[in-house]
Amino acid sequence: MDVKHYMEKLGAAARAASRQMAKASTAAKNAALLAMAADIRARQDELLAANAADVAEARAAGLEPAMLDRLTISAKSIEAMAQGLEQVAALPDPIGEISDMKYRPTGIQVGKMRVPLGVVGIIYEARPNVTADAAALCLKSGNAAILRGGKEALRCNQAIAASVRAGLKAAGLPETAVQVVETTDRAAVGHLVAMPEYVDVIVPRGGKGLIERISKEARVPVIKHLDGNCHVYIDVSADPAKALKILENAKTQRLGTCNTAESLLVARPVAESLLPILAQMLTARGVEIRGCAETQKLVPQAKAATEEDYHTEYLAAIISCKVVADVDEAIAHINKYSSAHTESIVTEDYTRAMRFLREVDSSSVMVNASTRFADGFEYGLGAEIGISTDKFHARGPVGLEGLTSQKWIVFGNGEVRG
Amino acid sequence: MDVKHYMEKLGAAARAASRQMAKASTAAKNAALLAMAADIRARQDELLAANAADVAEARAAGLEPAMLDRLTISAKSIEAMAQGLEQVAALPDPIGEISDMKYRPTGIQVGKMRVPLGVVGIIYEARPNVTADAAALCLKSGNAAILRGGKEALRCNQAIAASVRAGLKAAGLPETAVQVVETTDRAAVGHLVAMPEYVDVIVPRGGKGLIERISKEARVPVIKHLDGNCHVYIDVSADPAKALKILENAKTQRLGTCNTAESLLVARPVAESLLPILAQMLTARGVEIRGCAETQKLVPQAKAATEEDYHTEYLAAIISCKVVADVDEAIAHINKYSSAHTESIVTEDYTRAMRFLREVDSSSVMVNASTRFADGFEYGLGAEIGISTDKFHARGPVGLEGLTSQKWIVFGNGEVRG
Repeated sequence: MDVKHYMEKLGAAARAASRQMAKASTAAKNAALLAMAADIRARQDELLAANAADVAEARAAGLEPAMLDRLTISAKSIEAMAQGLEQVAALPDPIGEISDMKYRPTGIQVGKMRVPLGVVGIIYEARPNVTADAAALCLKSGNAAILRGGKEALRCNQAIAASVRAGLKAAGLPETAVQVVETTDRAAVGHLVAMPEYVDVIVPRGGKGLIERISKEARVPVIKHLDGNCHVYIDVSADPAKALKILENAKTQRLGTCNTAESLLVARPVAESLLPILAQMLTARGVEIRGCAETQKLVPQAKAATEEDYHTEYLAAIISCKVVADVDEAIAHINKYSSAHTESIVTEDYTRAMRFLREVDSSSVMVNASTRFADGFEYGLGAEIGISTDKFHARGPVGLEGLTSQKWIVFGNGEVRG
Repeated sequence: MDVKHYMEKLGAAARAASRQMAKASTAAKNAALLAMAADIRARQDELLAANAADVAEARAAGLEPAMLDRLTISAKSIEAMAQGLEQVAALPDPIGEISDMKYRPTGIQVGKMRVPLGVVGIIYEARPNVTADAAALCLKSGNAAILRGGKEALRCNQAIAASVRAGLKAAGLPETAVQVVETTDRAAVGHLVAMPEYVDVIVPRGGKGLIERISKEARVPVIKHLDGNCHVYIDVSADPAKALKILENAKTQRLGTCNTAESLLVARPVAESLLPILAQMLTARGVEIRGCAETQKLVPQAKAATEEDYHTEYLAAIISCKVVADVDEAIAHINKYSSAHTESIVTEDYTRAMRFLREVDSSSVMVNASTRFADGFEYGLGAEIGISTDKFHARGPVGLEGLTSQKWIVFGNGEVRG
């Protein structure tokens, strides 16, 4: 079978399974998740062996160390996978939720019911834990899933897929509700993203190159997470202690995450008093500062920032810095340079806090809090399939609800339209 | 200027205007809408003259009568346009609405704020009223809009656009918040749907051909309305009087609307008693019946239905008909053949009503009500930009809320992540 027909076969099976999943009871979905967790624990040795074979082959092929690290699983990470499945089982089931039922003058009662999207295609790199994680979120939200992981993780993904199938079977749900693509042919991705008759949405999880390619080729909606060029703006009415604490956490708690601050804006009237203190903290923590001319005057160790710097998500010990006139310039700068992920204002001024919240066009906008909070778990979603930097459908951290939509329902009693 | 640069110029202006519109006050937006209505009334003669020139040219070019009819405006339809603008002014402003704020264990308070999508591109055929209508909905929802109407309506659209600009100016809002594309070059559409840096969403309003072309070419999300192959299912526990009344209204109240029923399903145990009565009503109203073998046995005047019939949105005095075993077969048939617009079950049985509501995968699912109710006004949205047959973002009738998204907001007090 060629890869196109193979993908169509998976697609048709997923579409059929999605009908069963849409009506599956909460109890059956939870039973499947718990059975998967048990099966993954029981097969620990099998998973480790499959992963060891993957790692050996990837190492021989010269995979870079950071990727080898993400590919490698351990007894500990297998246990974390199992616990992740159990956590998703414990979350409330979003499906079937009826809301906003209102009587209309005609006598009908109109409202909404939350339903699954249908079939979710997940495309990710060589991280086996995503297989269990994504399967769990799709299953709990009543969707069928087609998973396409990095080719380096194929053996391990197939082993995890066997546990997923075992869990589905144990709960009386269709085993095709979660399918792992078994070909490593890159063309499989191109077909997966261009089958609107079988796939309702694509969630790519990986680097910017992967996501841009998928967005370009996709014939179905994509929930995509591009870069996180996050800003902290220190307003003229900032509490200096909060400013220091928030910037430190936002920039230095973890350098490589998408919600890490990459750019610092400081209001001119407080730049002279605050910027040197902030810069001293950054420098002490090994962070290189690239600033505007005013920054360089106040911070001797600062290098000059280029236009490119203000666009950059460093994911490294570097921060761009700019002195701005006021909140207007801060908002305009952010709306121009930001990737629309997460921004925070530090201020004690009510009106400027409210203006920043309303006018900054990013998926998360904060007052007096670290950008590092932009995360599905921190927001209380219980789980996260990704962080959307789009405005359409789901914005920011995407949990179970982001994998659903609402249809309209009408309760009538024989009413007709006049 | 070539058409690509022209469209980019419109796009850049729209993006800039969208920032102003996002923070515009409710009062300013309403003032603009009321000023537009007044200006449209004041320019009635100018609009009629522009339209007369459009109509004369279109008639000379051989435009078909139905399209000429939709192109033609009158003093009455100009008044309806003005009243439509006033009605949108009277609707609640969705923008800035804060919801679901909850404290998290870390001390931050997390919730959502409703915000505009940004720039909306509307592509429609030669119907001048859409120009005023779409402009109003985009403006009230805080978006900027680029409108591309059918080339036959160009003069009239430009005259309406002048009123829209006058209204924006009177309210102190940027005149570029609503721009009408002034070139009739078809390539303009191709550019409009492929500028993700300037346009956030496309709403095509028109025939299936237009929408399919746009969906294929679009590089941004599309809120699309394809066909309405709507079903009425008469369950074994249907109240015969309700069945007759609902089917009559759903099929015969208006033949050419997307929420008109195109297919009738009847449960086998009641087919013998009910189908002849239903068929008699349809025949009396001039509706041709195309049915399965069982239908033909019970209804002598029924022609044979082909597989193609069950897929067809007739928009005419024809209905397809099938006798099904039970609600399971009805749901499976609908999920296979329907265009996922609107379906209704007629039943007095609670469990089957609930199953139908949950398991039918369409944008509107009804119990004991005519499919004709699937409409933004009937649902209480106050206005409608279209009816989405997609599952992503907005599903079913799309009002102001469908032109917005929700971002996350965080109120902190200096919290950092641990």
